[in-house]
Amino acid sequence: MSGDQTLHFSFDVISHNAYLAWTQIHTLAARHDLVVEPEPVLFAGLLAAHGQLGPAEIRPKSMWMLRDVVRKAQRLGIPLAPPAGHPFNPLLALRACCLDHGPDALRRLVDGLFRAAWAESRDVSRPDVVADVATAAGLDGDDIVTRAAAPEAKQRLRDLTDAAIARGVFGVPTMEVRGTLFWGFDDLPNLERFLEGRDPVTDLDLSPWYAIRPLAQRRQVEPTGEE
Amino acid sequence: MSGDQTLHFSFDVISHNAYLAWTQIHTLAARHDLVVEPEPVLFAGLLAAHGQLGPAEIRPKSMWMLRDVVRKAQRLGIPLAPPAGHPFNPLLALRACCLDHGPDALRRLVDGLFRAAWAESRDVSRPDVVADVATAAGLDGDDIVTRAAAPEAKQRLRDLTDAAIARGVFGVPTMEVRGTLFWGFDDLPNLERFLEGRDPVTDLDLSPWYAIRPLAQRRQVEPTGEE
Repeated sequence: MSGDQTLHFSFDVISHNAYLAWTQIHTLAARHDLVVEPEPVLFAGLLAAHGQLGPAEIRPKSMWMLRDVVRKAQRLGIPLAPPAGHPFNPLLALRACCLDHGPDALRRLVDGLFRAAWAESRDVSRPDVVADVATAAGLDGDDIVTRAAAPEAKQRLRDLTDAAIARGVFGVPTMEVRGTLFWGFDDLPNLERFLEGRDPVTDLDLSPWYAIRPLAQRRQVEPTGEE
Repeated sequence: MSGDQTLHFSFDVISHNAYLAWTQIHTLAARHDLVVEPEPVLFAGLLAAHGQLGPAEIRPKSMWMLRDVVRKAQRLGIPLAPPAGHPFNPLLALRACCLDHGPDALRRLVDGLFRAAWAESRDVSRPDVVADVATAAGLDGDDIVTRAAAPEAKQRLRDLTDAAIARGVFGVPTMEVRGTLFWGFDDLPNLERFLEGRDPVTDLDLSPWYAIRPLAQRRQVEPTGEE
């Protein structure tokens, strides 16, 4: 398979599904000679851009999702523990990932932040926790926290989030290879089939689907079932 | 396995994912001696109750979902064709499913309506199409359409939708067995494991997860990444 060998991995540390996918993406990428490019994005920014609610904001959905995530972690043997609190403010952690660390240190940092939030019940919205995690990743923790709070890092996160929205990213994690987007942990098998040249959609003509027009708008239908 | 042997299948014909799950649910239920109880609900009502947007209302998500649904249909050999239009008004079709047909005729009617919408590109918002489908299901099509437009059927759909919301249903399809909800086509493997007594969540103490409190609200975080 020729072409761009980058696997863009858009993530927010606030997402347990992104954490689960992160634990799997490197072996998947290695099987296909892909380079994982971790791209921090602010999930709240994606939601705002699409006028969407996050799953944690819909009580019964968050209850369903909790069971779903715990199931997956148990099945795959992925360490998972209740977070210190949720939702939490992920900005500092994400901005720390926006600095130029080089690929190996960045991977260790993302690893450490995900694990802190989702396996170690640590509050990664706290500067001392982010500094600790960065230090454990072989970086200068205090320097990272200082630079993560500077305007350049803030702007970089905004730019990455805007660029993701422009490419059609609407949730996290999103895996993108050669312009095709895969969304969520559950899409990993589809990504794998795509990389193996077995994606049935690739060779299909979807243009009749793109031509579908609405026959009704939701606003014309009363939620209670009245016309 | 003792206990209630009912598998509640909440659906709206507007959902291709509900159609895909419907084609699989009967063999899954039969493997576990469950009786499928099809329960029409208005998806727009679920969305309104939770202040949510539907996937079709978020352009990049609807593009992702199209590929996802076509992939699944191809992989499983499920007939799928572009609908006559989408979204469409599902009220008449859903109300037709609210009448008392007996289980066999109801299954044939739901089958026919799903197939009409998602495999035969027919507009099931039209009374003549609903009548046709009902007749093909062995019912009196004209009588069904007349009774589906009557206040009793409208009220029944409202009641079913409200009851589903009260039980925590937030999307379609939702499969419910003995009080545990499974959501979406992708949750069928989890449902199967649950029925086989292999659901890791069943025996887990989730109370530490239920006790998680927010450390931040999304409103306090600017979508652009400003604090």
